[in-house]
Amino acid sequence: MENKFAFAKDLVYKAGAYILEHMEEGLEVEEKTCATDLVTQMDKNVQALLVSEILKHYPNDAIFAEEGQLKEDIEVGSVWVIDPIDGTANFVAQGYDFAVMVAYYENGIGQFGIIYDVMRDEMYHGGGQFDVKCNDKVLKPFRNRPLKRFLIASNAGMLERNDWGVADLTKDCLGARAYGSAAISFSRILQGRLLTYITYLYPWDYAAALILGEKLGYQVMTLDGAKPDYKTRQGIMMLPKEKISELQEYIYRRGEN
Amino acid sequence: MENKFAFAKDLVYKAGAYILEHMEEGLEVEEKTCATDLVTQMDKNVQALLVSEILKHYPNDAIFAEEGQLKEDIEVGSVWVIDPIDGTANFVAQGYDFAVMVAYYENGIGQFGIIYDVMRDEMYHGGGQFDVKCNDKVLKPFRNRPLKRFLIASNAGMLERNDWGVADLTKDCLGARAYGSAAISFSRILQGRLLTYITYLYPWDYAAALILGEKLGYQVMTLDGAKPDYKTRQGIMMLPKEKISELQEYIYRRGEN
Repeated sequence: MENKFAFAKDLVYKAGAYILEHMEEGLEVEEKTCATDLVTQMDKNVQALLVSEILKHYPNDAIFAEEGQLKEDIEVGSVWVIDPIDGTANFVAQGYDFAVMVAYYENGIGQFGIIYDVMRDEMYHGGGQFDVKCNDKVLKPFRNRPLKRFLIASNAGMLERNDWGVADLTKDCLGARAYGSAAISFSRILQGRLLTYITYLYPWDYAAALILGEKLGYQVMTLDGAKPDYKTRQGIMMLPKEKISELQEYIYRRGEN
Repeated sequence: MENKFAFAKDLVYKAGAYILEHMEEGLEVEEKTCATDLVTQMDKNVQALLVSEILKHYPNDAIFAEEGQLKEDIEVGSVWVIDPIDGTANFVAQGYDFAVMVAYYENGIGQFGIIYDVMRDEMYHGGGQFDVKCNDKVLKPFRNRPLKRFLIASNAGMLERNDWGVADLTKDCLGARAYGSAAISFSRILQGRLLTYITYLYPWDYAAALILGEKLGYQVMTLDGAKPDYKTRQGIMMLPKEKISELQEYIYRRGEN
C-alpha cells in the first residue's frame, strides 16, 4: 500500500503541473447539464492523464471517475475514485480554489485520499494506515468548541432556500461561507477552520475527504443520517463525530425544502 | 507621497508580523454589538501599533479607524483610514482569510490603499499616482466577459433574503461566493476573480479597495447608486464601471427587502 500511496501522490502532483502548464491557454468551456455545471477540456485531459497512468501501473484496478463512462462499483475490488478538477466554476472564473482529488478503496474500505489544492500548492493526503498531512505537516484531530465559535460552509442556493435547515444552523454558528468547491471546503475542515460542510455531492466529490476525515474524528454521511451510497448525487455533510447529535437537531429533523 | 507610501507599506508589514507572532496565544474574544461582531484584543493591539507609528511620523495627520473613538472626517485634510483586522470572525474561527487595511486620503481624494492578506502573504497596494500591485506583480485592469462567466461575492444573510436583488443577480451569473471578509473579497476583484462584491460596510472596510479599484476600472458606490458617505455603515458594492448599467438592472431597482 505504501508504494501505491507514493505513486498516487506523484501522479496527482503531475496532474497539478499539467494544469498549471496549460491554464493560460484559453479554456474551452462547454455546458454539461446547465450553465453552472461546466466541464472544460482541461477536466477531460486531466482525467485521461490520471486514468492512463493508473491503468498502466495497476491494470487490474477499477476506476470511478467524474467525466465519461468510467463508473465501476466503489464497494467491489480495488477502485480509484477520481475528480480531475473539483470546483470547475472557480477554475474557469477565478483560476483559483480548485483541486485534484483521488481516493483509493479496497472492497469499499478507504485506503488513502488525496486533495491537491493546486494554486496554494497544498496537498492533503493520508487516511487508512497513513497519517493525515497537509504537505509535510501532520494535521490535528478535531477539537471541540461551542457552536458559536465555528463557521460552516454550504452553497448559496441551499442557504437561500434554508434546505435541510442549513440557514437555521448558520444563525446559531458564527456564520456561513460559500467557497464553490467541495475540495476547498473539506480541506478547511481538515485544517480545523470549519465545523461542517453541507451540500449536494457525487461520490467523487466526497470520497477522498471521507477517508482523510475519518482519521481526524470526522464522518461523512447523508443529510438524513445514512451512509452515502457511493453511486448517486446526495445531500451530504462532513461533520465531527462528537457533534453529530448537536447538528442532528438542525439538519435531520428539518429535511429538504 | 512616495515616502509616505513606502512608510505605510512597511508599517502594514510590521502589523502583519505582529499578528503572526501573537496568533497562537489564546485569543481573548469579546462581543461588541452581537455574537458575530467580534473584537479581539488583537484588533485593538494592531490598531494601537498602526496609530502610534503614524502619529509619531506624521503628528499632524488625522485618523479614522475601526476600533474606539478615532473618527476624523475623511474628507477634510490628511486622513489615514485603518481597519486593523478585517474578517475578525475568520481570524477567530479559521486563523485565515483576514487582512490589515490602510488607506490614505487628502481632502477626500484617495492617495493610496493597502490590503494585506496576512496568511497568504499577499499585499495589494497602490492607487492614486502608484501602480496597483499584488506584491511585485502589476495587476491588470478589468476585462469584460458575459455575466454568465463571472462569480460574485456577497454574504450569506443577503443571499438568503435576496436583499437588493443579489440572489437574482447570482442566478444570471456563474454563482455566488461568501468569504466572510471585505478585504479578501475585494482582493479577489482586483485579481479579476470576481465581478463584484455586494454587502453592508463601514468606511474602513471599503476605503483602501476604493482607491485600488479606481485605477483598474472599478467603482465603489452605495447600492442605490450614490457616492459612499465615508461616515456610516451602508449597502456598498464595488463593480466595474463598464458593468454599472448592466448591474443596475438587478440592484438599484430592487432595493432592500
